[in-house]
Amino acid sequence: MASDGFRPLDEKSLVEYIKATPALVSILGKEFDKLEIKEVGDGNLNFVYIVVAPSGSFVIKQALPYIRCIGESWPMTKERAYFESTALKEHGRLCPEHVPEVYHFDRTMCVIGMRYLEPPHIILRKGLIAGVEYPLLAENISDYMAKTLFFTSLLYLKTTDHKRAVAEFCGNVELCRLTEQVVFSDPYKVSQYNRCTSPYLDADAEAVRNDNGLKIEVAELKSKFCERAQALIHGDLHTGSLMVTHDSTQVIDPEFAFYGPMGFDIGAFIGNLILAYFSQDGHADQANDRKSYKVWILKTITETWNLFHKKFLALWDEHKDGPGEAYLPEIYNNTELRQLVKQKYMKELFEDTLGFGAAKMIRRIVGVAHVEDFESIKDAAKRADCERLALNCAKKLLKERRNFKSIDEVVSTIEQGHLQ
Amino acid sequence: MASDGFRPLDEKSLVEYIKATPALVSILGKEFDKLEIKEVGDGNLNFVYIVVAPSGSFVIKQALPYIRCIGESWPMTKERAYFESTALKEHGRLCPEHVPEVYHFDRTMCVIGMRYLEPPHIILRKGLIAGVEYPLLAENISDYMAKTLFFTSLLYLKTTDHKRAVAEFCGNVELCRLTEQVVFSDPYKVSQYNRCTSPYLDADAEAVRNDNGLKIEVAELKSKFCERAQALIHGDLHTGSLMVTHDSTQVIDPEFAFYGPMGFDIGAFIGNLILAYFSQDGHADQANDRKSYKVWILKTITETWNLFHKKFLALWDEHKDGPGEAYLPEIYNNTELRQLVKQKYMKELFEDTLGFGAAKMIRRIVGVAHVEDFESIKDAAKRADCERLALNCAKKLLKERRNFKSIDEVVSTIEQGHLQ
Ligand SMILES: Nc1ncnc2c1ncn2[C@@H]1O[C@H](COP(=O)(O)OP(=O)(O)O)[C@@H](O)[C@H]1O
Ligand SMILES: Nc1ncnc2c1ncn2[C@@H]1O[C@H](COP(=O)(O)OP(=O)(O)O)[C@@H](O)[C@H]1O
Ligand SMILES: [Mg+2]
Ligand SMILES: [Mg+2]
Ligand SMILES: [Mg+2]
Ligand SMILES: [Mg+2]
Ligand SMILES: [Mg+2]
Repeated sequence: MASDGFRPLDEKSLVEYIKATPALVSILGKEFDKLEIKEVGDGNLNFVYIVVAPSGSFVIKQALPYIRCIGESWPMTKERAYFESTALKEHGRLCPEHVPEVYHFDRTMCVIGMRYLEPPHIILRKGLIAGVEYPLLAENISDYMAKTLFFTSLLYLKTTDHKRAVAEFCGNVELCRLTEQVVFSDPYKVSQYNRCTSPYLDADAEAVRNDNGLKIEVAELKSKFCERAQALIHGDLHTGSLMVTHDSTQVIDPEFAFYGPMGFDIGAFIGNLILAYFSQDGHADQANDRKSYKVWILKTITETWNLFHKKFLALWDEHKDGPGEAYLPEIYNNTELRQLVKQKYMKELFEDTLGFGAAKMIRRIVGVAHVEDFESIKDAAKRADCERLALNCAKKLLKERRNFKSIDEVVSTIEQGHLQ
Repeated sequence: MASDGFRPLDEKSLVEYIKATPALVSILGKEFDKLEIKEVGDGNLNFVYIVVAPSGSFVIKQALPYIRCIGESWPMTKERAYFESTALKEHGRLCPEHVPEVYHFDRTMCVIGMRYLEPPHIILRKGLIAGVEYPLLAENISDYMAKTLFFTSLLYLKTTDHKRAVAEFCGNVELCRLTEQVVFSDPYKVSQYNRCTSPYLDADAEAVRNDNGLKIEVAELKSKFCERAQALIHGDLHTGSLMVTHDSTQVIDPEFAFYGPMGFDIGAFIGNLILAYFSQDGHADQANDRKSYKVWILKTITETWNLFHKKFLALWDEHKDGPGEAYLPEIYNNTELRQLVKQKYMKELFEDTLGFGAAKMIRRIVGVAHVEDFESIKDAAKRADCERLALNCAKKLLKERRNFKSIDEVVSTIEQGHLQ
């Protein structure tokens, strides 16, 4: 045991830990000694245990003081568990339908106990690879994003509450720095961690590293990421951070949460849908050419933005006389003006969404952490073809983000990119 | 005495306080009982005592839990003294030539002891009203701004240090809120605190309250002020926060300091010089038509921006391989790219400067706190004429700030405004 009381759990010691933790015992009910425990962490950073007893279940997530997929050579504060549990609770309060309940948090042990999202819940990314349609996805994720982002922004919060929360989440700086490095820096320079589908994409990766125009735009996005405390964002809202069924959409893993630009979350989700889209040709086979599935992905992208747009503005309308001090009703006191102000706000948010979304796409193709959407395409040449189309699309979205007038234009660009 | 140990001082109790404070006793030397104490606070918020003994001197500034010029009916945290002393020390470390040394800080009593800026130091605003030229002003203030802003930004700081400092200054939220209210809100709505030179400017003030285009732009500036943690700004850098002589420029009173947009400081200074310019016709008399003085003010505006621009970029060059992580040298690895990145950075900073500067001008004409530059013009009709020209100039600068290509174009606009 480390001097701070922390010790890494394993499937065995976890049993003792649970028995000594009343909040967990009470969930499992009487037969809590008939436990089945399985470590399932497939993520990059942490350990996740599913704990099932005859009369109850939960998930235990523990952060260790390094990055799991790299090892002890890449240290990373285990305090991230505190920010993850704080964000889970806050986002769960704002949108309980789409966030698993937190049952227990132990700061010393960096352990979160939360609702077990039981089968048929699977990670959305895996569903997208399998070609499964989720009819409620756009409806649900737009709900989650509209609520979590609106209610933690200055559109709803008083400056006093906003700055207090900003200050607290400044403590999650190590995770912010990790994003800065892997999203905004490494892909644009030679780095020992970068990978790409070599040799096919070597020239493409080099082109990214030599693209002055791209680097200028990335600098702007990075500075927004580092400086702009717009709302409590999830910080890692890719398709691997959602667990879904036909009727349920659950957002997990907000360990990168902090007060940052809203477009970083919306972009992460949409950008990863675009990656899923471009990977489909690699998954097509004689039984399924994936054509109609690609149409569904594009429709989901369109609906996500449009529904988010609608719901976010509806919240703004509903709470225009609320505690938020950004647009006082005595100042923004006529319909035309309120219209103009909203248009301006949403235009900037749309640009941010495209910019951050594209940056997150690029880093998944030429950076350290790739996505299973592409990685699961065995044939490297075919994989590289898919990735190249995605990369070119991302570069265009990022550089020209200010020129897109609607999500439909974005979808056209994706389709055209695909026909190249 | 309040339960927290705080008690307001007066000229009498201050003597006891000093005697009980070794750090202050030691400055006064042996004859510290022959004290002369005088309260000189002419500012809006706090009490300032000049303390002089035969062998030493200092100034004592105490914050009370309300706004001095309004009274106990407008409470304001006395914790502002903590942020003032912290900012004085930090800015003093970065630019000791232009910041008075802090000798003593008492958090319980909200008392700062600092260097007495002895005569002939006077408040710059008073010098501007008197028509005095300060040949080193642009050189010195550009030095102060370049150093304090550069070294507290991500161009120099690591994210880790930056976020730690951002978090700390989030604590100064009450002062930020005061700025939000008096700069970005009250002038654009009916407010009990607003004043203007009535009846002359009633219609102008009303026009400000009905100007949709202006309100949209002000919303953007306000959101930047609230959300963008770019550097440790002074937060109140008008010409009443500088004490000057022919050879010395000293910045006092950073009680509004926090991590905000750099343009707010540069704009405050330049905007207040523009106010000084437009007030000159009100001070002209047969002995002095103020014509050449107006030329000097315009020259000082031009030089301030140009010298700031030069020095800020020089610091950036000098520290391009320093701790700052915003523009890694491995990414921004060619001259053309570095050039482009700097141009973009400085263009945005220039726009912010004009926007914030103009907003600070507007609020001094139709908001709660006016400036002595205009207030000292006895003839109300004449005063209103001066103020109207300044107001119109400010509206133009604010709305069209993105179109100005250089400070020379700004100066032309000021001159033209004057010829209207
Ligand atoms: N509440 C949960 N219910 C069911 N499975 C979960 C739950 N939380 C995490 N998992 C599983 O554990 C994996 C890793 O969890 P995640 O929170 O993404 O960890 P990491 O931070 O390491 O990426 C997920 O991909 C999912 O399969
Ligand atoms: N260090 C100093 N040396 C000399 N005079 C000072 C000093 N600090 C403040 N003063 C005088 O006190 C006045 C008020 O100080 P200031 O810090 O601006 O207070 P406030 O926060 O109330 O505006 C200044 O205008 C100046 O005349
Ligand atoms: Mg994960
Ligand atoms: Mg991600
Ligand atoms: Mg994670
Ligand atoms: Mg003052
Ligand atoms: Mg002050």
